[in-house]
Amino acid sequence: MDIVQTTLARIKPIDAELLAQAQTKLDNKTKPPGSLGRLEEFARRIVAISGALEPDLSRKVVFTFAGDHGITKEGVSLYPREVTAQMVYNFLAGGAGVNVLARHVGAEVRVVDVGVDHDFGDTAGMIHRKVARGTRNFTKGPAMTRDETLAALQVGIDLADQCKSEGIGLVGTGEMGIGNTSPSSAIITAISGKSVAEVTHRGTGIDDAALEHKIRVIEQGLALNRPDPSDPLDVLSKVGGLEIAAIAGLVLGCAANRVPVVIDGFISTAGALIASELHPHVRDYIFAAHQSVEIGHSFMLERINVRPILDLDFRLGEGTGAALAMGLIEAGVKVLKEMATFEQAGVSH
Amino acid sequence: MDIVQTTLARIKPIDAELLAQAQTKLDNKTKPPGSLGRLEEFARRIVAISGALEPDLSRKVVFTFAGDHGITKEGVSLYPREVTAQMVYNFLAGGAGVNVLARHVGAEVRVVDVGVDHDFGDTAGMIHRKVARGTRNFTKGPAMTRDETLAALQVGIDLADQCKSEGIGLVGTGEMGIGNTSPSSAIITAISGKSVAEVTHRGTGIDDAALEHKIRVIEQGLALNRPDPSDPLDVLSKVGGLEIAAIAGLVLGCAANRVPVVIDGFISTAGALIASELHPHVRDYIFAAHQSVEIGHSFMLERINVRPILDLDFRLGEGTGAALAMGLIEAGVKVLKEMATFEQAGVSH
Repeated sequence: MDIVQTTLARIKPIDAELLAQAQTKLDNKTKPPGSLGRLEEFARRIVAISGALEPDLSRKVVFTFAGDHGITKEGVSLYPREVTAQMVYNFLAGGAGVNVLARHVGAEVRVVDVGVDHDFGDTAGMIHRKVARGTRNFTKGPAMTRDETLAALQVGIDLADQCKSEGIGLVGTGEMGIGNTSPSSAIITAISGKSVAEVTHRGTGIDDAALEHKIRVIEQGLALNRPDPSDPLDVLSKVGGLEIAAIAGLVLGCAANRVPVVIDGFISTAGALIASELHPHVRDYIFAAHQSVEIGHSFMLERINVRPILDLDFRLGEGTGAALAMGLIEAGVKVLKEMATFEQAGVSH
Repeated sequence: MDIVQTTLARIKPIDAELLAQAQTKLDNKTKPPGSLGRLEEFARRIVAISGALEPDLSRKVVFTFAGDHGITKEGVSLYPREVTAQMVYNFLAGGAGVNVLARHVGAEVRVVDVGVDHDFGDTAGMIHRKVARGTRNFTKGPAMTRDETLAALQVGIDLADQCKSEGIGLVGTGEMGIGNTSPSSAIITAISGKSVAEVTHRGTGIDDAALEHKIRVIEQGLALNRPDPSDPLDVLSKVGGLEIAAIAGLVLGCAANRVPVVIDGFISTAGALIASELHPHVRDYIFAAHQSVEIGHSFMLERINVRPILDLDFRLGEGTGAALAMGLIEAGVKVLKEMATFEQAGVSH
């Protein structure tokens, strides 16, 4: 068995009995039953996922996976390819959006080079797991080989295993990769059967003409590669990306380790979608951070069957939405752990 | 001039030039312009409201105003009237939902007795500003006299003035008052011209028969009192509540003092609606924390013309939604203050 099969074999459904126990505990708190809405949902799901009635979310990590994309040669993005590496240095210096928002919620950012077209040497503070210097241009052939795809998946799975052994209570996904809305649109097109135009949007902010061009490029890549929708790894390798594969691996690994995972926006959800297509119970471990401005995102969330937590018109990625949502999920767990019961407070009910 | 007229005279529109300056600063940060969506909106509004290009939100306060309601004699609520006072003690002990969520975002909770039907004596840790021991039953006559209404408004205005002098950067509203969804529904009915049935919901969780009864009771109160929709203080005094009046005063006072104010759910928004009807620029200072489950809430938010920040199926009140939203607003201000610029980070754009 390869790493993916081994990991899939470890994934079990969550415990319905724990969901019920957590809700009973919530219903004894000084509030009308259910009146904290989704915070209560977060609390009971974290209990059922982690197996702890008093879950510890004090340690939280957002992984920002970076990778480059051959498809940028087709002019699909507003920013030059070099920005991927430049932003990695910005993450390491603590100056990017994800750094600010992760600090705000008390989460650590871990930056992973899984496929940047840049030699970082032994740059400190980052996780060096480069599989290749970017993907190939998927209008000319597959973006990745099957081996590269498995190697990138393994990066994510390894990091999830490490989180479990470190006692990380909540994991978030994020990414940086100029051009990576194009493979994400290609993935949801291949899996959903929607048209490219229905799921493709402006990324970092391209205009109408560039959007038309981007749609044509993705259509061309799909027509050439003909990814098999019944084989999620075929879709991932032919039109995906290294950071997307690593995110898929992280989500699978979190499910296998019973660690709750918060997925960020459009690109992270593309990775989570691949993971979710591989095993029906992966979705039990997923929290969808937010609704992205990218129009294809809704189709991904529907397909996985998760409801986004926030809707703040984000379209940045990096893990920014995941960080903010982690703060709200932790709030739900604090309701469970810290609120007084009717008996403790002497409140009639 | 009375306290309301004096306060209204202090309210000015926010500075459009400051909004533009804040956006220029945001557009130099290492992200595609506008890609942090509503966090950017929060940041530029806080700048324009406070007048500071580097706003200080380190000190945040949620005010939980407590008051009882004569309308509970008509059996409109699931919980007994005594719960209002019992919950005040719970707030003071730090065990309620608002305490947990305010701690989570680094905000202080201040509990104000503006109208509880209970003698708290010199109980420490609370703000004693009782105007009356609850309102009168508005199916038999006006809920409050004009003088009681003005006194309760003054409580909120005074507290806003105090926040300004203390350097509080962000204020949240909250309330506790068994029965207080009924006056809130009555207020939006009177002001919007909608039917009572269109804006009345289950409060803490009443069943279908009780909901029908609640609608009839509110209809009866409105038919008897005939509040004048062109006179918001007439509406407030005839079918409102002491804590709702105090919230209206707090919102007015925040607008007068250029302190941003985050309004919680259905009852808080009823108070903010009264304030907003009194002066067209009050809305510039308001952030709507969340979309409540209460069906009348949307009409209030539309009338004020504010878009809610969160949608987490809350229906608790107390200031719980306001507390969570304050954390997101602060995140927006941190983006403005802490993110690196393209120049600082050496990122191409």
